[in-house]
Amino acid sequence: MPLVRIAVPRHLDDTHVKHIADAIHESMVTTFNVPADDRFQVVTRHADSELVWAPTYLGIPHTSSIVFVQITCNEGRTVEMKKALFARLASSIAHGGAVLASDVIVSLVEVKKENWSFGNGVAQYAA
Amino acid sequence: MPLVRIAVPRHLDDTHVKHIADAIHESMVTTFNVPADDRFQVVTRHADSELVWAPTYLGIPHTSSIVFVQITCNEGRTVEMKKALFARLASSIAHGGAVLASDVIVSLVEVKKENWSFGNGVAQYAA
Amino acid sequence: MPLVRIAVPRHLDDTHVKHIADAIHESMVTTFNVPADDRFQVVTRHADSELVWAPTYLGIPHTSSIVFVQITCNEGRTVEMKKALFARLASSIAHGGAVLASDVIVSLVEVKKENWSFGNGVAQYAA
Repeated sequence: MPLVRIAVPRHLDDTHVKHIADAIHESMVTTFNVPADDRFQVVTRHADSELVWAPTYLGIPHTSSIVFVQITCNEGRTVEMKKALFARLASSIAHGGAVLASDVIVSLVEVKKENWSFGNGVAQYAA
Repeated sequence: MPLVRIAVPRHLDDTHVKHIADAIHESMVTTFNVPADDRFQVVTRHADSELVWAPTYLGIPHTSSIVFVQITCNEGRTVEMKKALFARLASSIAHGGAVLASDVIVSLVEVKKENWSFGNGVAQYAA
Repeated sequence: MPLVRIAVPRHLDDTHVKHIADAIHESMVTTFNVPADDRFQVVTRHADSELVWAPTYLGIPHTSSIVFVQITCNEGRTVEMKKALFARLASSIAHGGAVLASDVIVSLVEVKKENWSFGNGVAQYAA
């Protein structure tokens, strides 16, 4: 169900990008109650000038290896689940060695269950 | 009013991509109460590694010709309208011959009417 | 906190794209209560065929220099703030000379405060 948009700097190589996508999915399965085969991710790769950020926000510095993760998902997860997801995402991505935990920027967009179709023109989650 | 993001694999040629964009718009006009000239679509084309999906989800298999459609639209459509949109989207896109109905993945993001500007800095739908 | 997605035609040069991104951020700081160092923008550049629009909608004509701005932000801004943002966005972008105010298309996606992480795996805005 989640649709995950992952914007990464072009200088990250294929292996690192794959690690990031895998880490995000694993984090969602582990902390966010997402089935292992419920994986839909769209990666965009960007020139440095196409990812724009301030040097520091809320005391956290950012570098040119910043990664933006935006997850569209069903509404209803608790704040605790969201916190667990964010923590896991940052640590899993950082484990790959190319991106710092401080450079993992995440946002969630919550939608109704009836707002999805996973193929064949059916709203699989609608009541 | 809808903003439609269409992510397609790079191996689809221009003719097929145009068919997909046209099919999506026609489906929205037909089933979702969208005016014919209310068309705002952003297409991104992706290397195979940039669209990530599991082989099967909910019993529906996916292939490298998968297409992700994300529609930001006004809140308030009924579940029946959403079901009609999904059905029409999948069949219209599949009619073009390059993408299977099983590979049409759709999500809707609903927003308030006041959240749009269609040019000139005006919130045209605000009360 | 806002995540700003900016889709621009590929024929706009780097200087104009930078002006657009700067104008958007300045508009948000001025009218939308966004801190100056709260800047997270993702730019995508598109071939002409990848940005699709009708010649006119609501009496406003569009050209091949159309720009799509989608802002994910916290819920709760007033309609007046949204109107002020739209007005400022269109005039600031147009001031750069490459894009007409009539070609600035904006949508807002509002989310809960707890839905953000700005690095280090923490939900910085959660209560």
